[in-house]
Amino acid sequence: MNYDVIVVGSGPGGYVAAIRASQLGLKVAVVEKENIGGICLNWGCIPTKSLLKSAQAFEYAKHAADYGISIEGDVKPDLAAMVKRSRGVADGMSKGVQFLFKKNKIEQLLGFGKLTAKNTVEVTDDSGKKKAYTAKHIILATGARSRELPNLTQDGEKIIGYRKALVLDKQPESMVVVGSGAIGSEFAYFYQSIGTQVTLVEFMPTLVPNEDEEVAKQLERSFKKMKMKVLTSSSVEKVDTSGKKCKVTVKTKKGEELIEADVVLSAVGITPNTEGIGLEELGVETDKGRVKVDDFYRTNIEGVYAIGDILAGPALAHVASAEGIVCVEKIAGLNPEPVDYGNIPGCTYTSPEVSSVGMTEAKAKDAGYEIKVGKFPYSASGKASAAGQKDGFVKLIFDAKYGELLGAHMIGGNVTEMVAEMVVAKKLEITGHELIKSIHPHPTMSEAIMEAAAAAYDEVIHL
Amino acid sequence: MNYDVIVVGSGPGGYVAAIRASQLGLKVAVVEKENIGGICLNWGCIPTKSLLKSAQAFEYAKHAADYGISIEGDVKPDLAAMVKRSRGVADGMSKGVQFLFKKNKIEQLLGFGKLTAKNTVEVTDDSGKKKAYTAKHIILATGARSRELPNLTQDGEKIIGYRKALVLDKQPESMVVVGSGAIGSEFAYFYQSIGTQVTLVEFMPTLVPNEDEEVAKQLERSFKKMKMKVLTSSSVEKVDTSGKKCKVTVKTKKGEELIEADVVLSAVGITPNTEGIGLEELGVETDKGRVKVDDFYRTNIEGVYAIGDILAGPALAHVASAEGIVCVEKIAGLNPEPVDYGNIPGCTYTSPEVSSVGMTEAKAKDAGYEIKVGKFPYSASGKASAAGQKDGFVKLIFDAKYGELLGAHMIGGNVTEMVAEMVVAKKLEITGHELIKSIHPHPTMSEAIMEAAAAAYDEVIHL
Repeated sequence: MNYDVIVVGSGPGGYVAAIRASQLGLKVAVVEKENIGGICLNWGCIPTKSLLKSAQAFEYAKHAADYGISIEGDVKPDLAAMVKRSRGVADGMSKGVQFLFKKNKIEQLLGFGKLTAKNTVEVTDDSGKKKAYTAKHIILATGARSRELPNLTQDGEKIIGYRKALVLDKQPESMVVVGSGAIGSEFAYFYQSIGTQVTLVEFMPTLVPNEDEEVAKQLERSFKKMKMKVLTSSSVEKVDTSGKKCKVTVKTKKGEELIEADVVLSAVGITPNTEGIGLEELGVETDKGRVKVDDFYRTNIEGVYAIGDILAGPALAHVASAEGIVCVEKIAGLNPEPVDYGNIPGCTYTSPEVSSVGMTEAKAKDAGYEIKVGKFPYSASGKASAAGQKDGFVKLIFDAKYGELLGAHMIGGNVTEMVAEMVVAKKLEITGHELIKSIHPHPTMSEAIMEAAAAAYDEVIHL
Repeated sequence: MNYDVIVVGSGPGGYVAAIRASQLGLKVAVVEKENIGGICLNWGCIPTKSLLKSAQAFEYAKHAADYGISIEGDVKPDLAAMVKRSRGVADGMSKGVQFLFKKNKIEQLLGFGKLTAKNTVEVTDDSGKKKAYTAKHIILATGARSRELPNLTQDGEKIIGYRKALVLDKQPESMVVVGSGAIGSEFAYFYQSIGTQVTLVEFMPTLVPNEDEEVAKQLERSFKKMKMKVLTSSSVEKVDTSGKKCKVTVKTKKGEELIEADVVLSAVGITPNTEGIGLEELGVETDKGRVKVDDFYRTNIEGVYAIGDILAGPALAHVASAEGIVCVEKIAGLNPEPVDYGNIPGCTYTSPEVSSVGMTEAKAKDAGYEIKVGKFPYSASGKASAAGQKDGFVKLIFDAKYGELLGAHMIGGNVTEMVAEMVVAKKLEITGHELIKSIHPHPTMSEAIMEAAAAAYDEVIHL
């Protein structure tokens, strides 16, 4: 065998698995066909957050007078400069992972990886040259790509996916964003905030459909306040790209609407990268296009594992990383606990930010719980007032019987940082009163968590 | 009796105690001689955070080009406008508390309160008129004020305290700040960031002397990077205010130094407001000027309680609030747990922010613990890179024997929000491995907490 472990794919599932495997004394190689770090580092989490930071800085500059700052001339967004910064940040992170690979003596096998036999990965490089490598354990971490709908075929110019949306060379005057999950909502927010007229189209009745309904409604209010056009319960029927502008036919609750836009961004979900990697040849079982695995990410074929976006379950970088770690710890003979899929935080980095973990109010009721719900608005938070970020709230769901925290749902400034507290709280099965009696520092937005818990038990102070 | 409870002082100790008491069915009045909400709302936490938000917005506007924003003209701070915004935020919060008083049927007794007999408070109003009120329980929550040193007598013009520093009508060109606790450091940061040349003088060998030494050193580096002059192990010997500028004689490690400045801000701690409130007359026991209480804030005199800054212990708004709640819950016959003074978070809202809870490395060693220390730098955090906030780190201290979290020390963006996670973690006695296995969302700065825990156990991924 050439290696103990070969990981196919160097995204946040693959590279984290490789580093942990190396820490545990295994000899590791990673196959990557494109950029080290995968989509997350190069075309996802990191460069989007960089653009969103530029949007935030632009908001401050635009509203400088509100904070007591005088600016004489015009304040203008420069998309090309924002993109350049974003690419620089992504490149820096990718180089960081390459450094970690060297430090951990992880070999990089550049090319497209395919399972050709048990314990064998064939790597085809850019020039078409093939070479086979063997390993006792092969972890598939090939990730996913933008999903294509038949009536939204991406041409890369007028109908684009998230990759192109990250590097547009000219700011569009108008844009239709289709799909309001995290990716769609973040781009809709970004482009609207720098002055593009955005129409956000969502098939479901609320934005960010995985989030609690009250959170979704607040996000819709905030988006509309910034003059974004929001169409829920709506779908794009067709896009005519023959003219200078796109003519987008949207079926809404009120009938058909024709919207003109420079560009259409399709953000209707992702498709796992399962083609051509040898699943069929080796007989690796799948279900609805996703690889089937057990609690430790073992497929039905001995020595073949899968993690990340090619599995069913939430397609999130931190989930892929956690899966990678559990997978290699088990391979190395440790005794890791399986990932608790009931305690996975999710974040959307719009402004206001959105975050959540655990059950929504609706899901807790569906699951048969008798619940206590506590909500605390940012309008009553001193820190939110001082920061000029009064839109938002924290909503907590407790089991009425034992007082256990079931879910946390937040919208507002800093909530993407605050949700980690809820993950730890849920992991340790905190009760409402333990949370109320955890002294939160004043003045912070995190106090809203303590107050929301208190609200569930009629002990809230600032309402 | 007129009331069940009279609270003397309406700061974050007093007003919170009053609201909780009313929730518990008690008839409550609050005595206040000045502004409802006390120092915290009117002259402390809230208006400072508002000014610091202006400083943050100014930093964004000044460095707009770094984020891809073009500004043609000059970007200038307007201190008067910043102060106006800050006063507006404070007034809004004070009105909010007045609304809560009405809602909770809490009576306001405006004037200076003094214990004149057991169960009796005499209130002297602005016109000198006195009226006595009786209550079964009297809670002293009179707070504290800026401490005055003999060689730093505040004249309100050239030598000022924090109250004046919040409402200066003209931005000084130069300022000497004496004392680098939270108040001193925040003002030093604020004025330096808007263009005042600040010299920060600290008697102890490190800034923010209550914080972990590594945190203090990072803050000093960050302050020096913004061209602040930092003098540690130094003390102000005398200030000559006879000329146009103040001539400040500072004794440093290297000898005496004469610094000229427009204004000197004295931030050398606080003095409890214990004078004239009837402590001596009633025989309420004190120790070194602080009122002595038991775990439920009972003084030696039956029916007389004390909370907040007039006690020994940390002079923090959230501590006073927690004490007030425990105090009235006990009065109302509930069975509250005493406040755990080992689990109190502290925050300094400079940039980078500073936060901590629990033992520093030095204190844990002094207490005889064998410890594991984990540290994770923001330079290795994807979110910090995307946000342009690479200065900072998270440092965690674990008990080597049982793995329990003993302390958390952070400096960097968002850490004042992140520390609440550590409070909850400590409350539930989290171990290092439980923290490592709590899935933190990517990309956030809170991941640095998980990684710091992993670093303590040689399982860190991104280092």
